[in-house]
Amino acid sequence: MSARQEADRVEILSGVFEGKTLGSPIALLVRNEDARPQDYDPLRDVYRPSHGDFTQEAKYGVRNWRGGGRVSARETVGRVAAGAVARQVLAKVDIVAWVERVADIEATVNPDTVTRDAVDANIVRCPETATAERMIERIDGARKAGDSLGGVVAAVARGVPAGLGEPVFDKLEADLAKAMLSLPAAKGFEIGSGFAGTLLTGSQHNDPFYDAGGRVRTRSNRSGGVQGGISNGEDILVRVAFKPTATILREQQTVDEDGHDTTIKARGRHDPCVLPRAIPIVEAMLALVLADHFLRQRGQCG
Amino acid sequence: MSARQEADRVEILSGVFEGKTLGSPIALLVRNEDARPQDYDPLRDVYRPSHGDFTQEAKYGVRNWRGGGRVSARETVGRVAAGAVARQVLAKVDIVAWVERVADIEATVNPDTVTRDAVDANIVRCPETATAERMIERIDGARKAGDSLGGVVAAVARGVPAGLGEPVFDKLEADLAKAMLSLPAAKGFEIGSGFAGTLLTGSQHNDPFYDAGGRVRTRSNRSGGVQGGISNGEDILVRVAFKPTATILREQQTVDEDGHDTTIKARGRHDPCVLPRAIPIVEAMLALVLADHFLRQRGQCG
Amino acid sequence: MSARQEADRVEILSGVFEGKTLGSPIALLVRNEDARPQDYDPLRDVYRPSHGDFTQEAKYGVRNWRGGGRVSARETVGRVAAGAVARQVLAKVDIVAWVERVADIEATVNPDTVTRDAVDANIVRCPETATAERMIERIDGARKAGDSLGGVVAAVARGVPAGLGEPVFDKLEADLAKAMLSLPAAKGFEIGSGFAGTLLTGSQHNDPFYDAGGRVRTRSNRSGGVQGGISNGEDILVRVAFKPTATILREQQTVDEDGHDTTIKARGRHDPCVLPRAIPIVEAMLALVLADHFLRQRGQCG
Amino acid sequence: MSARQEADRVEILSGVFEGKTLGSPIALLVRNEDARPQDYDPLRDVYRPSHGDFTQEAKYGVRNWRGGGRVSARETVGRVAAGAVARQVLAKVDIVAWVERVADIEATVNPDTVTRDAVDANIVRCPETATAERMIERIDGARKAGDSLGGVVAAVARGVPAGLGEPVFDKLEADLAKAMLSLPAAKGFEIGSGFAGTLLTGSQHNDPFYDAGGRVRTRSNRSGGVQGGISNGEDILVRVAFKPTATILREQQTVDEDGHDTTIKARGRHDPCVLPRAIPIVEAMLALVLADHFLRQRGQCG
Repeated sequence: MSARQEADRVEILSGVFEGKTLGSPIALLVRNEDARPQDYDPLRDVYRPSHGDFTQEAKYGVRNWRGGGRVSARETVGRVAAGAVARQVLAKVDIVAWVERVADIEATVNPDTVTRDAVDANIVRCPETATAERMIERIDGARKAGDSLGGVVAAVARGVPAGLGEPVFDKLEADLAKAMLSLPAAKGFEIGSGFAGTLLTGSQHNDPFYDAGGRVRTRSNRSGGVQGGISNGEDILVRVAFKPTATILREQQTVDEDGHDTTIKARGRHDPCVLPRAIPIVEAMLALVLADHFLRQRGQCG
Repeated sequence: MSARQEADRVEILSGVFEGKTLGSPIALLVRNEDARPQDYDPLRDVYRPSHGDFTQEAKYGVRNWRGGGRVSARETVGRVAAGAVARQVLAKVDIVAWVERVADIEATVNPDTVTRDAVDANIVRCPETATAERMIERIDGARKAGDSLGGVVAAVARGVPAGLGEPVFDKLEADLAKAMLSLPAAKGFEIGSGFAGTLLTGSQHNDPFYDAGGRVRTRSNRSGGVQGGISNGEDILVRVAFKPTATILREQQTVDEDGHDTTIKARGRHDPCVLPRAIPIVEAMLALVLADHFLRQRGQCG
Repeated sequence: MSARQEADRVEILSGVFEGKTLGSPIALLVRNEDARPQDYDPLRDVYRPSHGDFTQEAKYGVRNWRGGGRVSARETVGRVAAGAVARQVLAKVDIVAWVERVADIEATVNPDTVTRDAVDANIVRCPETATAERMIERIDGARKAGDSLGGVVAAVARGVPAGLGEPVFDKLEADLAKAMLSLPAAKGFEIGSGFAGTLLTGSQHNDPFYDAGGRVRTRSNRSGGVQGGISNGEDILVRVAFKPTATILREQQTVDEDGHDTTIKARGRHDPCVLPRAIPIVEAMLALVLADHFLRQRGQCG
Repeated sequence: MSARQEADRVEILSGVFEGKTLGSPIALLVRNEDARPQDYDPLRDVYRPSHGDFTQEAKYGVRNWRGGGRVSARETVGRVAAGAVARQVLAKVDIVAWVERVADIEATVNPDTVTRDAVDANIVRCPETATAERMIERIDGARKAGDSLGGVVAAVARGVPAGLGEPVFDKLEADLAKAMLSLPAAKGFEIGSGFAGTLLTGSQHNDPFYDAGGRVRTRSNRSGGVQGGISNGEDILVRVAFKPTATILREQQTVDEDGHDTTIKARGRHDPCVLPRAIPIVEAMLALVLADHFLRQRGQCG
């Protein structure tokens, strides 16, 4: 989806010895190898609308205008690398994310059965082939128009044991919400039935318990695998809304560093739609939160 | 909206001396004074669907079945008390929350101008009078039917300075999302344009900057006052989805503590709709997150 | 040792149900019941030398001059109550602290065999009877002279499993040092051989390992049960230096709140020697640190 | 003092742009360039007495026997690098540490006047020339004997404002104690009068306040610049006890990984005395704790 090519070679700086983790912190280093800082020269003195340029300056009094520094979504490579370690901790948990919607093009995907292979079968990472093709076409249109698109990523974690989450402040859904809203361009979060669930009555919405051969399960999963802030053993289901990318190749109204009105027109290799790239990142954040709570639960409750 | 009457008298245990905070932790104690534990006797051995009963048991191997303990929304009184202190820190910030939607009955409220008085003018805490009446009527219907309703609370914080938020993990919207999803019955969170914003293109969605007489402002506020994880000086706008209350007065399928199929029918003074009661709680969480980040920002950037 | 009588009745506010902990936070309330605030009136406008009066004012711009607020050692009752809970977590660990030295009167106590009964056998909590009598006599002399004494508390934790501690920053001895130096009047901390061990050579100081019937043990314990920041299964041995109490009943040079030179002469029921009262507090802090690390270790390493 | 030569070149990975810090985390990388892993081959299967070999294995079930990994004092290079950044925050604070004692050879140094130049004037980093020469001679003797020595490092921070420290748990001396006891080979910590102060009476020990031309100061400084957990504006004075290095070139009793009795005789470039190398590390930890509390105080009290 993007013209940027990053090898993303990971160098392990610490914490691993003879093929095993040591228990001490694991430091992983991924260098930017395909940076083109000159692409950012026009951004030196002006703020990209709805980007982090202005707020970095407002907060720190200084900013890295050349590529955005911490504001660049390139920082998420560290999350993905850490997520790979978290997945080792969660050996029995199966995590899959997918592009559920791009603009108004929406796929209907069964979270019980969706697979990584189906997600990775196309470039837009939507496991519904026909819908994926429409998404790709729409994204190509946006690229040609110098514009950008948003959408929704959905994710499921299957095999999560009951008991994860630390009410009242560190409820599992609270930490998941924080993790997802810490992602660049994220504007919304849902667990289970989310906003749509608010249209139901309690008798429609509640998930009835039943005896599933000696294990307590629920017949529906509008809870999204979490009740009272603690996992109930059903699939964890979350959705994340990503706004259209802020950096577009069209002229926009803005101000310069002196606060004077001006216009900006970005250039460079900016994604017209971050959704496909967000898949591994959402999976990583899901894995990290679950791994944290798995360790906390083992600590507290043995 | 509820038959439960709590005086909610606060006893200050520490941290205040001769009418001033001391800088040391402030401990506030509010005792439950209208508890009717006998109402909970039928819940001793069975799990309420979509409630925290089962998960508390799954996590800790023990639970307070008499009133729910930490699972009870009564715990939020502590949040409201703490929020009142946080507002002292945020002297120049004006925070207002309101019920935006109950089931499918939705109000259109202007966040720039909504006032506390307008919100408090009716029992459902929706500042649009006609809509409020329809909401009240719908809630009364649900109560009579032994059922419950969900909806959406919106909130605005006006006068927040630019610069609050600590990327990458403690972005302002990330901490707001966590705070809101830590609330009982919360299933979704949005900042600014939220899920709806994903239907726009970047050129439609971006908030153009302009010179507002020497101060950089944005013409629209789809960002919800946050860009790149840091406040930009515009109004902070958030929405929280609350599911219909889990405890309903209808018979439901469930299991008992031995894992056997059974039914449950709650009694007691359970709210058919928590939305109106959620208003001060959402405001408190908003105030607490902003106060935390205000202090962090002062610490880091002076 | 003190004329102050506190019943120290503990009210459990939360976290316990039907005689069991619930997994949620346990709040314990102990009210001051024998306060005599009028004793503090002379302290309203002047700073007690080497007390926290001045620094509280310097930090917060306000202070509780009536009893000292957080500066009062009365705050340690919360530590003792929490320590009692921590000991439940550490069922197999045996913790004993004792007064090792008051001024220059020192006891020689074997940490392998010292018992709680021996410590509690006298009012000064030194398990060596003859030495205890000399300590009591010296403290009585200090009281009559309106003066105060310091000394050293030693503590042992027996039965601590190997593996507790989180290098590099949260080494076990680091957290123990922090816990002990957070106590009022603490000025020094040692683990194992401490300062005296610096007089030895490595060949004298090292603890040789040997095979103790299938378990690795050390022949000596100059390490104090911790090597490389992690417990090694031997007894944890710590010492804490407590300065002589700052509040004395003699006239002292000081300044008033306006910064003018003046004198102060305290009255009231101030301990001439805090050492005996420090015993349960040191034990509590030892238990809390060990319990924390026990849970962390179970979390990380299962 | 050591035959090991490390260039200690620092690569700045993040957080600095065009010569200025960005406000975002600063990542610094120093690679080990003079490692001789083959020196550690004899340590593969046996535990060095009083070293972290055994406890790492006991905790994690695995260890980096080749150089010790996190157990190596080489990890402190990160502390020194971070301390250099902390000193930028503490522009008005002057921090100097020095070797006060090696074994029983002790210098009497005035903390009010000791300078960095005086400390760096000799290889053992003791500012008293004649004493330094005796220390060097003693260390050379220990090296020839394949043995090691311990001692005491003292440090002063001058110009620290009153008000730093967060009672009750994060008292300034508590965080300093933790920081120092997190250092390899540290076995003791003192602030101000420390253990020696316990021999005085309160009337001897208290630091009288006086009006120093409009500023409240103390005539003595047995408090070590901290009263009630908060800095009082006087010099911060700390001492750290370092045991003799565990790794010595003499044969010692130990066990192997199977728990069988054996002997060990290390080889390689191990310091016979870590004290001189500890100077920049102690200074760095002092700077880091003070910088943390400076930022916290600015956050809380503005």
